Amino acid sequence: MPDTITLPESLRALITSGPMAHLSTINADGSPQVSVIWLGLDGDDLVSGHQHAGVKIRNMQRDPRVVLSFDAPRVPGTFLDENAVLRARAVVEPTDQAWDLLDRLAKVYVSPDATFPVERAPGFIVRYKVTRIGGVGPWAG
Amino acid sequence: MPDTITLPESLRALITSGPMAHLSTINADGSPQVSVIWLGLDGDDLVSGHQHAGVKIRNMQRDPRVVLSFDAPRVPGTFLDENAVLRARAVVEPTDQAWDLLDRLAKVYVSPDATFPVERAPGFIVRYKVTRIGGVGPWAG
Repeated sequence: MPDTITLPESLRALITSGPMAHLSTINADGSPQVSVIWLGLDGDDLVSGHQHAGVKIRNMQRDPRVVLSFDAPRVPGTFLDENAVLRARAVVEPTDQAWDLLDRLAKVYVSPDATFPVERAPGFIVRYKVTRIGGVGPWAG
Repeated sequence: MPDTITLPESLRALITSGPMAHLSTINADGSPQVSVIWLGLDGDDLVSGHQHAGVKIRNMQRDPRVVLSFDAPRVPGTFLDENAVLRARAVVEPTDQAWDLLDRLAKVYVSPDATFPVERAPGFIVRYKVTRIGGVGPWAG
């Protein structure tokens, strides 16, 4: 199992700016599955919150190998727009705190005074241990 | 094998606006692989151009099941930002015309007067037959 790595500051800044994150998981039949999600930081882990056990949750419980990818802001006239492509191992944690994470992320992804507009309920926090950083940008080395 | 489907006009407009597309393929070991690519339309097919046979090309030659996902422009204050998540079958075609497609897409993705800044060489066009449209937006039904 590969060691996880320290996230460079440029990548941390991109993540905390609130990019829509494309989470790629593997379906039971081996085909790819993608959900677009909110993403946060917790130390060197990435985290996402979910109030329902959808396909992506079941996929990660069966196979923790995922990719998280997201765009940096577009710069007109740029040949290679920046993006991050992160391989990671996902750990799905059932919890009563999913809503709190979603409410924290709503303040980034919706507006600073937003409240997560769904009733609090037990759910899941997924913790992503990044094992490889790729893409185009200063974080990609 | 599922039939391919007609792309709604809203989705065609999003694609021709030049969103960075996240292409999810499956590695030989069954793990997910993601590349961020330029995407174009050819009738109801999506197409991408490549001048080298990288991992994503080899993956699609082995397993044509892919997902293409991309964001619509962000709207501040929106709870659910729009995005498209398309399941598709990929057909990899070796060709001398990959550069021409990349040059056409450079005019969308870089600037209207851009020329694709890599020497013309034989390469690959990948044709994506969309089998399912998901995500958040008018195209998702």
